[in-house]
Amino acid sequence: MDDRTKTLAQLTTPAVLIDLDKVERNIKRHQDYADRHGLKLRPHIKTHKLPRIAAMQLQTGAIGVTCQKVSEAEAMVAGTPEIKDVLITYNIIGAEKLDRLAALATKVKMSVVADNETVVAGLSQRFAHEARPLAVLVECDTGAHRCGVATPEDAAVLAEVIAKSPGLTFAGLMTYPPPDGAAGVQAFMAQAKALIEAKGIAVPVITSGGTPSMAKAGDAPVTTEYRAGTYVYNDRSLVARGACTWDDCALTVLATVVSVPAPDRAIIDAGSKTLTSDLLGLQGYGHVLGRDDIRIDQLSEEHGRLVSDGPIGFKVGDQVRVVPNHACVVTNMVDRLYLTKAGAIVATAPVVARGCIT
Amino acid sequence: MDDRTKTLAQLTTPAVLIDLDKVERNIKRHQDYADRHGLKLRPHIKTHKLPRIAAMQLQTGAIGVTCQKVSEAEAMVAGTPEIKDVLITYNIIGAEKLDRLAALATKVKMSVVADNETVVAGLSQRFAHEARPLAVLVECDTGAHRCGVATPEDAAVLAEVIAKSPGLTFAGLMTYPPPDGAAGVQAFMAQAKALIEAKGIAVPVITSGGTPSMAKAGDAPVTTEYRAGTYVYNDRSLVARGACTWDDCALTVLATVVSVPAPDRAIIDAGSKTLTSDLLGLQGYGHVLGRDDIRIDQLSEEHGRLVSDGPIGFKVGDQVRVVPNHACVVTNMVDRLYLTKAGAIVATAPVVARGCIT
Repeated sequence: MDDRTKTLAQLTTPAVLIDLDKVERNIKRHQDYADRHGLKLRPHIKTHKLPRIAAMQLQTGAIGVTCQKVSEAEAMVAGTPEIKDVLITYNIIGAEKLDRLAALATKVKMSVVADNETVVAGLSQRFAHEARPLAVLVECDTGAHRCGVATPEDAAVLAEVIAKSPGLTFAGLMTYPPPDGAAGVQAFMAQAKALIEAKGIAVPVITSGGTPSMAKAGDAPVTTEYRAGTYVYNDRSLVARGACTWDDCALTVLATVVSVPAPDRAIIDAGSKTLTSDLLGLQGYGHVLGRDDIRIDQLSEEHGRLVSDGPIGFKVGDQVRVVPNHACVVTNMVDRLYLTKAGAIVATAPVVARGCIT
Repeated sequence: MDDRTKTLAQLTTPAVLIDLDKVERNIKRHQDYADRHGLKLRPHIKTHKLPRIAAMQLQTGAIGVTCQKVSEAEAMVAGTPEIKDVLITYNIIGAEKLDRLAALATKVKMSVVADNETVVAGLSQRFAHEARPLAVLVECDTGAHRCGVATPEDAAVLAEVIAKSPGLTFAGLMTYPPPDGAAGVQAFMAQAKALIEAKGIAVPVITSGGTPSMAKAGDAPVTTEYRAGTYVYNDRSLVARGACTWDDCALTVLATVVSVPAPDRAIIDAGSKTLTSDLLGLQGYGHVLGRDDIRIDQLSEEHGRLVSDGPIGFKVGDQVRVVPNHACVVTNMVDRLYLTKAGAIVATAPVVARGCIT
């Protein structure tokens, strides 16, 4: 049977469902927020990994997309002509990746980041003889302590190195802040911008990101651009942070109860190979829609264990819908998604940028 | 460049490497253990997901393989003619999966498990008019509190239901015990076996499983068969349990240092999309070979953060080898693996049973 003619109850489970009505609403709401605060929006494709949803974001006002790895950018650019501007927020190292980046840069506008001179030297060597220079932003550590130069002074030094490097143009500053990090972003970026401008170098873009922090992005007015990913689907971690409601969650996992071994316990056919072990600081591995009493307290690879303080109330064969802790990682676990509108399946979509880790 | 002509240092990272010399040694060691204890070995393919390694296990003495989902069995059976006997340790529900199971059963010997009468009824209805009956084992809960009938009495009741169901034969008892659960397995299974035999029904197979418990599998002499998966590669969780050494770990993740933002911190290009968030009770997300001082204290999707109490001692571009917490889930994250012998790449292998969740 063609999956598009199936009802949800007929789908083989576990299945990852995307509610396109909610996706549309989430895209519109966040684009409106960005517009109101004078921020350009550059969605991160890591959440959906689907060219058609990137196209929806661009058609609603996004200025381009963000990818984390070269292979993600390759998959997305090949997937839709709507994508004409890609920022890869990653230090790109090694001849093979640089060659692939150069090939992409002949097709669309590419920007990347760097937080150290070794990466800048590699980019410069590769792009010195290309027709167009590569845009490079300096990644700044505004408190997340992952990548990034540690101080505004270091940012200014690296900006000047980029500006003087053959084949490169200095394109601005980038950060992935910790949650509620707007004040830190504002302080770091304003100082770095002043130091760089004092060298006679323009800072055209200052880009920050993260869906959890987006509601306060306006508190860092130095920012010109915002990168968010998860807002397109939302998930349990964002509901827990108060960023959205269950009704805003566009991605759900449809699962079947395969065993009810005790009155207070049921086992579903979605485990860590679907929901993943990501906790994001939460207890348990997801939320069963309509059942606030249930905890998903344990996952093995193909089993999810549901427990309740009262009767679990399921029988074998029942279906449940689970909002996962973290939407982005769930789309990386499956080869295809079921897209729905008004509760009916309208399409299946291969996850073209799944597994793109290089 | 053909990947087989590359040195490890030339590979695009992150890359998952499989040391075939260690695989061979691990297979031999565990087959020897099973032989010494009179246990038939039925390896779980969830760890490797590769037909060629299943073939190595079968050629060394395994009697068949274990899969968790029908789609895994389909991928493995299609991948090698060596696989002639498959046990799916899962309650199979729904017309589509039952049809696929029936198709498999025309090609190889298939067995499945059930822990409730709804599942048995579905299996019976589908197989009643097949040429060969389906072998069904009763899944028993010997302490892991996942699936399984709760008591030996319940096992005997369900065994009789299976024995009387058209299209099915009762094939024995199955359990996935908690770690160090041999005593519980022995007590439960001995009692269930006696109760079932008292009904005049034979119990040809009693199958237990799990690599962490395998060293004590001999403590449950009622067991006839053992299912283990992780032993083929081993991982950090098994080193932590004392089940193996770092030198026995056949799966490693090759990653590149992309940033050294502080003297005690480095960032690698392998994050949760490669190493996964599985903790298995451990602190941190993997072990950097040769660097006992380093903790991988934080993962995001494409970044792994390495910290040390002393100087981290890496420069950008250095490569590291990481033993992940849990090998099985890592092979589910990548489309291909690099197989090595004597430190050189001898083949790349598509992970044919990756993402098989239905």
